[in-house]
Amino acid sequence: MSAGAAPATPARVVVLGGGFGGLYTALALERLAAKGAAVEVSLVNRENYFVFQPMLAEVIAGDVGILDTLSPLRQLLSRTRIFVREAEAVDLERRVVTLGAGLTRRTHEVPFDHLVVALGSVTDFRGIPGLPEHALPFKTLADAVRIRNHVIHVLEQSSEERDPEQRRAMLTFVVAGGGFSGTEVAGALNDFVRRAVRDYPSIPQSEVRIVLVHSGKRLLEGELTPQLAAYATTALAANGIELMLGERLASATPGSAVLSDGWRIRTRTLISTVPSSPNPVVEALGLPLVRGRLDCEATLAVKGADRVWGVGDCGLIPMPGGRPSPPTAQHAIRQAKLLAANIVAHEAHAPLRRFAFSGLGKLGALGHQRAVAELPGGLRLSGAPAWLMWRAVYWWKLPGTARKTRVAISWLSDLALPPHPVQLNLGGSRGTAQAHYEEGETVFNEGDAGDSLFMIIAGQVEVLKRFGDEQRAVGTLGPGEYFGEMALLGRDPRSATARALSSLDVLVLPASDFSALAGGLPEFRRGFEEIARRRTDANAVPSAPDPPG
Amino acid sequence: MSAGAAPATPARVVVLGGGFGGLYTALALERLAAKGAAVEVSLVNRENYFVFQPMLAEVIAGDVGILDTLSPLRQLLSRTRIFVREAEAVDLERRVVTLGAGLTRRTHEVPFDHLVVALGSVTDFRGIPGLPEHALPFKTLADAVRIRNHVIHVLEQSSEERDPEQRRAMLTFVVAGGGFSGTEVAGALNDFVRRAVRDYPSIPQSEVRIVLVHSGKRLLEGELTPQLAAYATTALAANGIELMLGERLASATPGSAVLSDGWRIRTRTLISTVPSSPNPVVEALGLPLVRGRLDCEATLAVKGADRVWGVGDCGLIPMPGGRPSPPTAQHAIRQAKLLAANIVAHEAHAPLRRFAFSGLGKLGALGHQRAVAELPGGLRLSGAPAWLMWRAVYWWKLPGTARKTRVAISWLSDLALPPHPVQLNLGGSRGTAQAHYEEGETVFNEGDAGDSLFMIIAGQVEVLKRFGDEQRAVGTLGPGEYFGEMALLGRDPRSATARALSSLDVLVLPASDFSALAGGLPEFRRGFEEIARRRTDANAVPSAPDPPG
Repeated sequence: MSAGAAPATPARVVVLGGGFGGLYTALALERLAAKGAAVEVSLVNRENYFVFQPMLAEVIAGDVGILDTLSPLRQLLSRTRIFVREAEAVDLERRVVTLGAGLTRRTHEVPFDHLVVALGSVTDFRGIPGLPEHALPFKTLADAVRIRNHVIHVLEQSSEERDPEQRRAMLTFVVAGGGFSGTEVAGALNDFVRRAVRDYPSIPQSEVRIVLVHSGKRLLEGELTPQLAAYATTALAANGIELMLGERLASATPGSAVLSDGWRIRTRTLISTVPSSPNPVVEALGLPLVRGRLDCEATLAVKGADRVWGVGDCGLIPMPGGRPSPPTAQHAIRQAKLLAANIVAHEAHAPLRRFAFSGLGKLGALGHQRAVAELPGGLRLSGAPAWLMWRAVYWWKLPGTARKTRVAISWLSDLALPPHPVQLNLGGSRGTAQAHYEEGETVFNEGDAGDSLFMIIAGQVEVLKRFGDEQRAVGTLGPGEYFGEMALLGRDPRSATARALSSLDVLVLPASDFSALAGGLPEFRRGFEEIARRRTDANAVPSAPDPPG
Repeated sequence: MSAGAAPATPARVVVLGGGFGGLYTALALERLAAKGAAVEVSLVNRENYFVFQPMLAEVIAGDVGILDTLSPLRQLLSRTRIFVREAEAVDLERRVVTLGAGLTRRTHEVPFDHLVVALGSVTDFRGIPGLPEHALPFKTLADAVRIRNHVIHVLEQSSEERDPEQRRAMLTFVVAGGGFSGTEVAGALNDFVRRAVRDYPSIPQSEVRIVLVHSGKRLLEGELTPQLAAYATTALAANGIELMLGERLASATPGSAVLSDGWRIRTRTLISTVPSSPNPVVEALGLPLVRGRLDCEATLAVKGADRVWGVGDCGLIPMPGGRPSPPTAQHAIRQAKLLAANIVAHEAHAPLRRFAFSGLGKLGALGHQRAVAELPGGLRLSGAPAWLMWRAVYWWKLPGTARKTRVAISWLSDLALPPHPVQLNLGGSRGTAQAHYEEGETVFNEGDAGDSLFMIIAGQVEVLKRFGDEQRAVGTLGPGEYFGEMALLGRDPRSATARALSSLDVLVLPASDFSALAGGLPEFRRGFEEIARRRTDANAVPSAPDPPG
């Protein structure tokens, strides 16, 4: 646009999401605006920072500082209006985005001319019983920190555990999914755990197991050439990771991962990197989705919508030749630049360009300072050279000099200084949640500390009590009934054992919530006391029908 | 002890707490054991790390990395058995410590010959209405990170807020307590907020207020000479901190801090560094407490108990001259060394030594690279030289070379690199909790997003509804009644306004917990639906007695 053009009303562009797709679209639009394009950019993101996703696995292992993967959005985007809120809904008719309630509990509407959807995908554990309740996702920074804290927690616990079966379960770490994300997590976890256990003299190091469950016959199959996929598979196995190939996760419980062939792995740590599904806001747009992604033209325009654009993982964007663009950072960044240009071209009634980037190559870290790389021109690297390249490429891509410096410092000090296995547990309970058990699993044992109340949603529970040396069933409970209240009322150990008679789903009310409710609402407490009293009376006779919890 | 001495059964020493007192006692015992003393040391601590408390305020400001203040206990203590658990109870008769339940939900008993109580003090907000619910404590690392996250959250929110009164409340930060801890927090917060707002063009920088409320006439009164206390008071005021001296906190609500003279400061951020009280485990020992601290001899033996010792903040330890030892790191470290020697002397039936350390001086940071210092021999420093000394002294005291290096790197990079205002919000709700409101305050407004259900514990709520331009009271609710369920059932905005008619305490059930309960227990949901239906019907007539929430 020439300096002499009539000043146009700027087109309002609202970008949903601050990942690679969203951030780089806003950056490119800012640059075009600086050159005179009449656009006004707003960006909506749940956090006030951009997360450098490719380095998240390093947070688990502590190879980079927790904050080193983050860049404050406001420092990256100087001319963009930033809303740190949840995008709750989009009205394509009225052309407004509704933002979620904040401190003042008021929702807020942002009008747009152009809408850029860059919301990525979300982890969706529905569909596999117990997965939402008992698997740890690996997608966000909070996920990575939570995994790290959990791993240190089980290591601490295993160091004091005298029941060998319990200890082995605590020292078994299961990762589900053998794509780039799963192999990176398994590699980082393997490095971290095997290094960390050296600080625990009482942990038998030979009992540590890192298990990677993958439905294919090889890791990274379809993502790399067969030769490199084979290298990755061998490298992970050589580092001590147990591979369970051709297997899927069938269900999860607090104490085990159940595989599709019925095999049960006793574990306290199940990390799942699959499956992912569209962001609920994308689903609610009412636009056609293909394999969970917005159906886009090669110009990035969403099919069937007016001035709505898709970028990054949430869009299905055709590449030259017709194959969809893969969900990687390098593709999202190129799409973003094209998208910004196309929005400006659309406003100028100029022709739009088509996405024509075929990728610079593929990179995946395997832990143990090993990686695999596939470069254009058929060049392939593996092992330490690929790992050095992996670090160099991602370091180069980090936004801003300050970020680059911080990460370089972090990497250099890790070479010189010992590792740093400290938790960063910020407390915060999950509140009332569900739990899933498989047939035969114990919910709690007589004598255990009582830390929660259970209400049965589906399934049956058998209640067992010890009489001398003998354990007898004293009753069965079904949907709508609850158990475990006795320990909460008196702060005593569990007075009986509760075991799942079938696949079981329960609602778990933590002791802290129970106390809050019981303290604030005397009738609530009295109700439980009354039933507890009846159960205790009934239970003087071991064959009583109404058993204690 | 000579190498020829008969091998004694080692005395089992259990140390409760891994702060300065506990860690340094275990370290000194390890050294004595290496020289031949027959002691076996266990240490019980809730976290697997030692927190370098004096640097916590720097975490709020981001001057040191979050993990830089932490050192893994297992790397510091190589011969000590470490239990990362809650110490739940001590039985002085049976001489066992009961550890809280872990992953397996089993409690665990640790027997002892000598017990070292090094549990410090805990923040106790009971006694001031609303303080437990609405004030942020500043005591642990989690507290510091939570304060940092909260501050960034309100800054983000204020940048979009169009109601000037709401925005000013968001930009007002109140710290209660003008001792070392309160002044350090206020100083760090002042530096951090004033630097961070520069990234928010829409925030009027003149509206930022940092208020320090202190009951005395001068800050740090009694802790420093009048001259230095006056310097500190002037320095904080000069940096833009508003001082409210001679005032105490009377109550707290979600939107305000109420002072003893009735003055209400509208704020979204209230940090309280007072009051602290004994750890519940210390209280439960049944030993005499003086001003909340264990009554100790100058030998550190707890009066009236056999082989029970107090060290650090939780003990009242007389210094030469009779004054109690102040709760500082330098005193705890010296006590710890003496205590280890006295335990070994006690086993050898040798005479015990008495605590005779009068302190090396006092140091307090004021923010803005200023501090105050009082040194032995009457030497006093203030301003930048004192701040440099503050850093040098604490850096020197950091345990381990690796830690020293990491902190030095962190400080040096902060000189060169821009600040880093990113949140580290790990999610995790508080679950069901209480909230406190003062008369006339609004719990929610008609049209607000509905995110929780309220049950009245004490006090009265007035329900108001808009009819055209007019707002009419449609009813009053009292203890045992609840409100706010309608928005949760339909996910609609609030259908009425709820306002406290008196001092009000409510139980707040978050929407997530409500959904879990309503989803898992159909009767629970039906109960609320039934009452909501009755309220809606009744409310067709505005004067109905049974109003909606």
